[in-house]
Amino acid sequence: MAGCLDASSVAAVLARMAETRPRVHCLTNTVAQNVTANMLLAFGAIPSMAVHVDEVAGFAQGAGAILINLGTISAEGELAIPKLLEAARDHHKPLVLDPVFVELSPLRRHIAREVLRLPDVVVRGNATEMAALASELDAAERVTRVTTGKVDHIEGKRGALAIAHGHPLMTKVTGLGCASSALVAACCAVETDPVIAAGAALTAFGIAGEIAAAKSAGPGSFAVNLIDALASLDEALLRRHMGERA
Amino acid sequence: MAGCLDASSVAAVLARMAETRPRVHCLTNTVAQNVTANMLLAFGAIPSMAVHVDEVAGFAQGAGAILINLGTISAEGELAIPKLLEAARDHHKPLVLDPVFVELSPLRRHIAREVLRLPDVVVRGNATEMAALASELDAAERVTRVTTGKVDHIEGKRGALAIAHGHPLMTKVTGLGCASSALVAACCAVETDPVIAAGAALTAFGIAGEIAAAKSAGPGSFAVNLIDALASLDEALLRRHMGERA
Amino acid sequence: MAGCLDASSVAAVLARMAETRPRVHCLTNTVAQNVTANMLLAFGAIPSMAVHVDEVAGFAQGAGAILINLGTISAEGELAIPKLLEAARDHHKPLVLDPVFVELSPLRRHIAREVLRLPDVVVRGNATEMAALASELDAAERVTRVTTGKVDHIEGKRGALAIAHGHPLMTKVTGLGCASSALVAACCAVETDPVIAAGAALTAFGIAGEIAAAKSAGPGSFAVNLIDALASLDEALLRRHMGERA
Repeated sequence: MAGCLDASSVAAVLARMAETRPRVHCLTNTVAQNVTANMLLAFGAIPSMAVHVDEVAGFAQGAGAILINLGTISAEGELAIPKLLEAARDHHKPLVLDPVFVELSPLRRHIAREVLRLPDVVVRGNATEMAALASELDAAERVTRVTTGKVDHIEGKRGALAIAHGHPLMTKVTGLGCASSALVAACCAVETDPVIAAGAALTAFGIAGEIAAAKSAGPGSFAVNLIDALASLDEALLRRHMGERA
Repeated sequence: MAGCLDASSVAAVLARMAETRPRVHCLTNTVAQNVTANMLLAFGAIPSMAVHVDEVAGFAQGAGAILINLGTISAEGELAIPKLLEAARDHHKPLVLDPVFVELSPLRRHIAREVLRLPDVVVRGNATEMAALASELDAAERVTRVTTGKVDHIEGKRGALAIAHGHPLMTKVTGLGCASSALVAACCAVETDPVIAAGAALTAFGIAGEIAAAKSAGPGSFAVNLIDALASLDEALLRRHMGERA
Repeated sequence: MAGCLDASSVAAVLARMAETRPRVHCLTNTVAQNVTANMLLAFGAIPSMAVHVDEVAGFAQGAGAILINLGTISAEGELAIPKLLEAARDHHKPLVLDPVFVELSPLRRHIAREVLRLPDVVVRGNATEMAALASELDAAERVTRVTTGKVDHIEGKRGALAIAHGHPLMTKVTGLGCASSALVAACCAVETDPVIAAGAALTAFGIAGEIAAAKSAGPGSFAVNLIDALASLDEALLRRHMGERA
C-alpha cells in the first residue's frame, strides 16, 4: 500500500536543497527549458543545459543530478545521451528520464530503452507515456516509476507513495510536467532514496500549484504565481496544505 | 470586398476546438516555442514540437494541422521540412507557413518556395514579409494569404475577410505573431474553409489582446494576461467585443 | 577610479534607442532567447536570432550590434560564430560576448579565445566567468570588461564605471544576465563609447529591477514586472532612482 510523506520530511529535503544548492544538468526540450530553469531556481537548485557533445560530459560529471527529457530530442541531443549515461554511471549521479510523447515515436522508445540500461533510473511520465514504456520499465533494473496525474504514484524497490496535491490548471501550462521531472532530479541530488526524493518534489510542486491556483485568473497568471509559490514554500505552508497541525 | 465574421461563427470554431482538442505539430523557432505552446493550450489545442528527422513525420501524420515557422530555422529543421510537406500531402493535413524575416534571408525565401509547391497552404506574415514573398504567393496554387497588422487581411479563393481587433502592445511581445500562426493552424484543424479558420483565430486572438491590454501595466504583464484572456473567451465575451447584442 | 553615469546620460542613450530602434542579432542560448527578445523589445530594440550557417552572416551584417552568448552553444552555433566575427569585422559592428559557465567548459574557453581575437569586444560575465577568462581578457585588444554582480564594474580603455543598481531577485530568474548582455549590445548600437553604452544598459536594467522588486511576490512575478518596468523607464524615473533632483 502506498504511503505519503509528512510535511517535515518534505521540508527536510527542501532545507538540504537550500543549503547545498545542487546543480541539475538538464538535457531537455527547448519548449520547457525556460520554465524548467526558473522552477529549479525557485526550488533552490541551479540549472545547466549544455548539449554540445564536446562539453556535455563535463557539465554532467560535476552536477548533483542529471535529467534526460525527450520532448524535442535533436540529433545533437541524441549524441549527448551516451555521454550523460556514462557520466551518471562513472560518477554515480542520479538520473531522471522524462519520456515525453514516447507513445508517438519509435525513436523515443529506442532512446528510453538505452537510458533504462542504466540501473536506478527514475522515470517520470504521465499514464499514457508510462503505459507505452511498460515492457521497458519491467525489464529495467531497480527503476523508480513516477506516474503523474490527478494523483501521482511513485513506485520503487523500497516502497511506494501516492501524492494527491496539485490543480487542473497545471495541465494547461506547457512544460510543467517537464519541470516537475527536473524538480525530482534536484531532490535526488540531496536525498538518496529516490522514492522519498520524488515524493518531496511532487508534494512541493503540487502544493505550490494549489497556492498559485487560488490567486490566478487563468493559465498565464497561474504559470507566474506557481514560480512565486514554489519559491515561498516553507514547513508551515507545507503543513497547512497537508492538513497537519503545527 | 472583405467581409467580417460574426461572434457566433467564431464561437462555433472555438467550440469545435474545445470538443476535439486537435494536436498542432509545430516546427517553429526556439524563441517562440514556449508562448506558442501556451497559446495553443489556452485555445484548447495540443502542441507538439518534435524536429528530429527520424520522428517528425510520425508526429505530423497524426496531427490535426501542421505549422512551419522559419524564425530560427536550423539545419535540422531544414531537413524536417520535406517530411512535413510529405505528411501534409499524403495525409491531407492543413499546413500554415509563417515566413518570419523572409525579407532578410535568401535561405528562407528558398524554403518558402518549396513549401508553396504544396497546394492550399495558408501563409501568415506581416506586410513586409508578405511583400517579400509576393511572386511566390502569386505562383502558388490555392494559397490563403493572411497579412496581419493594425487590420488583418485574409484573402483566399473563396472570399476575403478583414479583422480589426488587437492592440499595439501585441507588437511589443516576442513570438505573438508566431503564436497567432499556430492558432490559425489550430482553427484549420477544425474548420475546412481556411478563410473562416484564419478569421476565427485572428478575431479571437485580437479580442484576447484587447481584454488583456485593459488590465496590463506593460508588455510583461500583457503577455501573461493575453494567455488568461485567450483561455477565458466565450461567445458572450466575443459578442461584447464585436459590438453585437446578445 | 570608477565614475558613474548621471540620469541624463542614460536617458540620452535610451532616447537614441527609441529613435533608431536598432536590431540586435543574438546568437544566444535557447533557455534565455525568449526573455532576451522581450527585454530588447521593452528597451526599444529589435531582436533577431537566426543561427543557420547559410543565413547568419546576412542577419549580422545588417544589424546594429551582435551578441554571442555561449549558454547552450550547439555544433550549429559553433559554425555560425566565424560568420558573426567576419560580419562584425567587415561591417564594423559592435560585438558583445557573454561567456556563460566558461569555467566549466574548455570548449567555451576555446570559443571565447577565438572571439577575443577581434578587437573592441565587450565581454559581460559574472565574477567567476570573468576570472576564468582572465588571461584571455588580458591578451585581448581594446576589450571592455563588464563584470556584473551586486555592483557592476565596467572597465575599458577610456574609463571605468561602477553601477550599484539592481535587486537580489535578479539572480533568481534564469536568463537575466544573458538578457543584460543583449541590452549592452543594444546600447552599443547607439553609443560609440562601449563604457558609456554598458553603463547606460546596466543602470537602466538595475533600476528596472528595483522598480519591479517593489511590486513582486517572488521570482515569477518579478520576471514579468521587470519587463514592464524596463518598458516604462524615462528620465524622471531614472532620476528618482539615481537620487538626483529634477
